[in-house]
Amino acid sequence: MLQLTEEEMKVGTEKMKFTIHRDQFVQSVQHVSKAISPRTTIPVLTGIKIEASFDGVTLTGSDSDISIESFIPKEDEELQLVDIEVPGSIVLPARVFAEIVKKLPESTIEVIVSDQMTTTLKSGSSVFNLNGLDPEEYPRLPEIEEENVFKLPTDLLKNIIRQTVFAVSTVETRPILTGVNWSIEDGRLTCTATDSHRLAMRYAKVETNTAGLSFSNVVIPGKSLNELNKILDDQDEWIDIIVTDNQILFKAKNLLFFSRLLDGNYPATKNMIPTQSKTGVTLDTKKFLQAIERALLLSRDGKNNVVNLKTMENGNLEITSVTPEVGKVTEDVTCLEFTGEELRISFNGKNIIDALRVIDSTEVKIDFTGAMSPFVLKPQEHDYMLHLFSPVRTY
Amino acid sequence: MLQLTEEEMKVGTEKMKFTIHRDQFVQSVQHVSKAISPRTTIPVLTGIKIEASFDGVTLTGSDSDISIESFIPKEDEELQLVDIEVPGSIVLPARVFAEIVKKLPESTIEVIVSDQMTTTLKSGSSVFNLNGLDPEEYPRLPEIEEENVFKLPTDLLKNIIRQTVFAVSTVETRPILTGVNWSIEDGRLTCTATDSHRLAMRYAKVETNTAGLSFSNVVIPGKSLNELNKILDDQDEWIDIIVTDNQILFKAKNLLFFSRLLDGNYPATKNMIPTQSKTGVTLDTKKFLQAIERALLLSRDGKNNVVNLKTMENGNLEITSVTPEVGKVTEDVTCLEFTGEELRISFNGKNIIDALRVIDSTEVKIDFTGAMSPFVLKPQEHDYMLHLFSPVRTY
Repeated sequence: MLQLTEEEMKVGTEKMKFTIHRDQFVQSVQHVSKAISPRTTIPVLTGIKIEASFDGVTLTGSDSDISIESFIPKEDEELQLVDIEVPGSIVLPARVFAEIVKKLPESTIEVIVSDQMTTTLKSGSSVFNLNGLDPEEYPRLPEIEEENVFKLPTDLLKNIIRQTVFAVSTVETRPILTGVNWSIEDGRLTCTATDSHRLAMRYAKVETNTAGLSFSNVVIPGKSLNELNKILDDQDEWIDIIVTDNQILFKAKNLLFFSRLLDGNYPATKNMIPTQSKTGVTLDTKKFLQAIERALLLSRDGKNNVVNLKTMENGNLEITSVTPEVGKVTEDVTCLEFTGEELRISFNGKNIIDALRVIDSTEVKIDFTGAMSPFVLKPQEHDYMLHLFSPVRTY
Repeated sequence: MLQLTEEEMKVGTEKMKFTIHRDQFVQSVQHVSKAISPRTTIPVLTGIKIEASFDGVTLTGSDSDISIESFIPKEDEELQLVDIEVPGSIVLPARVFAEIVKKLPESTIEVIVSDQMTTTLKSGSSVFNLNGLDPEEYPRLPEIEEENVFKLPTDLLKNIIRQTVFAVSTVETRPILTGVNWSIEDGRLTCTATDSHRLAMRYAKVETNTAGLSFSNVVIPGKSLNELNKILDDQDEWIDIIVTDNQILFKAKNLLFFSRLLDGNYPATKNMIPTQSKTGVTLDTKKFLQAIERALLLSRDGKNNVVNLKTMENGNLEITSVTPEVGKVTEDVTCLEFTGEELRISFNGKNIIDALRVIDSTEVKIDFTGAMSPFVLKPQEHDYMLHLFSPVRTY
């Protein structure tokens, strides 16, 4: 007959048991929560999956489109973060669990899962008992072969996202336009976003060990990129990026971020960009931005955001906007350089502002090709970005 | 025949003209905007009234219940703030006007009103023309006789507001309870707020030149006090307070804040407060607050916020809360002092939190008079505040 001590018997009834550093736990829970949607139709996806192995604790959150995995290692830089007594796994309700770990009083938390999936969280004088869900029901993350791998520094990836994702479509009439189109050719990444009224394009050099790496029509949902951007710290560590037929995986330190890709063919955008210029102006980015912001104060109420631009004889620009019931605004914007023909054109001022806010250049160049044609806005100080806008007919 | 120069003729057609310091103008506009409701049925009250005299510029905003007047003097501490060319007045649409002055490019703004009430705002390269409204249509502010005057330092007034207004009723079933009841007797101000489940009371000494000043049932709408609190800077200047039959006026430097009073009789609250104690506990405010906050995590979803308290044999308190579908929380709270009988009681934890957050005392004393009776929570470090709570029946 097998003789067990009381302590051993107690361990035997526990499905999982570990003690963890609270701040690390809070941060990981916040990260994986970004993937969780309260509107999911799959009950187990309202939860966070917690898996304890002797290496550390892995948290997972998913809404089927985005899945995030955060790993807390046993030790980090000689600091012990987790003490595992019994490895195991559980799924806990995401929202309430996230709030609890944030408010627990002490710097460590003890997590104990009993036979019945009841989970006890202990910290100082505080004890929570939560009803867990069966981890066996939690869907598996996609398995991704590491074939098409390239990498980017985190801060560059964050800039690329910030400088393109604002231009995606927010309406579902053409779902493919709700994503950002990524392609790689000759070691250069091109990211394109458009809602069919304006277009943002961003180039970047990438590092890769895959010889001759090249792909196109990899369309990442704008929502995925926004969530990824929130999680990533602004640092210069490298992120590995792996592309498959229907998934993209971003691998950072102790973090995996999976997103499904959008189905369908992204429209050909290269030929849309005019190559010549009939009127060219160079402007101070900040002054131009502020003039358009003020002009918008009088065009926003009509919801059309229409702003008018006119070249003046003195070589400056006049920006105007009118709402008959309220009034009119006139802005005089100095051109640092002016070439070509006179012009009157109207456009959506909000779209111009979105571009000017991410352009990272103290001066910008605009090339017009007539009042009815799309125009190009580019930074003066670098050539890795381009913005294209349709004019608005006002008569 | 009268000969006018061109300049004189131009002045003749201007109804108002002045140049003003932008930052002062922005702040005054923000202050008076607090009184303006976009839902008003009186069109002229959607605007800000601007009046220029040779002393300075006066701005007024009002929703009939609250009226705010802000004065920008010609000079302040030897700095010229306003340069008046033509005195006059106009009413400008509040929201768009507030946004414009905030975004104008230069440190001064020129304001010119033409014959037709069209108003020009000029600043640097920016020119706005706004359709004004007739200042003759703007209602007059109440005339208040300075009879019942007393005064408080601004920071004390702000504390009094913060420590009572949270307890007013937010439902309109008993309108009188949406206000805070102020009374003065023997130089002592008593402010009471209750939603009939909890009550907050605050005392303060006041300064007055009115011999034997005494009043009661001055019920100030909670909304008015909240707006007043937002405008006042946390400083130690004195504020004059003047009470009439249906109005209260707060007079700060360059600022008048009028509020109508609520009609009706405020319920007698003095006799509601129990004077004896069957169970008395003294607690660390912060630890008690955090324990209740955690307990609420599991009672909030049911929307009832019920938290249970039990005295334990070791002289501590056990705080618990249960939502059957989610789980249970148990908190152990140390009593610094314990007197009297054992007790089990349930209450609305949210109400306790509201009180603990404003109590400004590191320790609190609670006196219970049985599981079914209201209980009193008081700061240990001062005696100018008292909170009363009804228990909740849980069976």
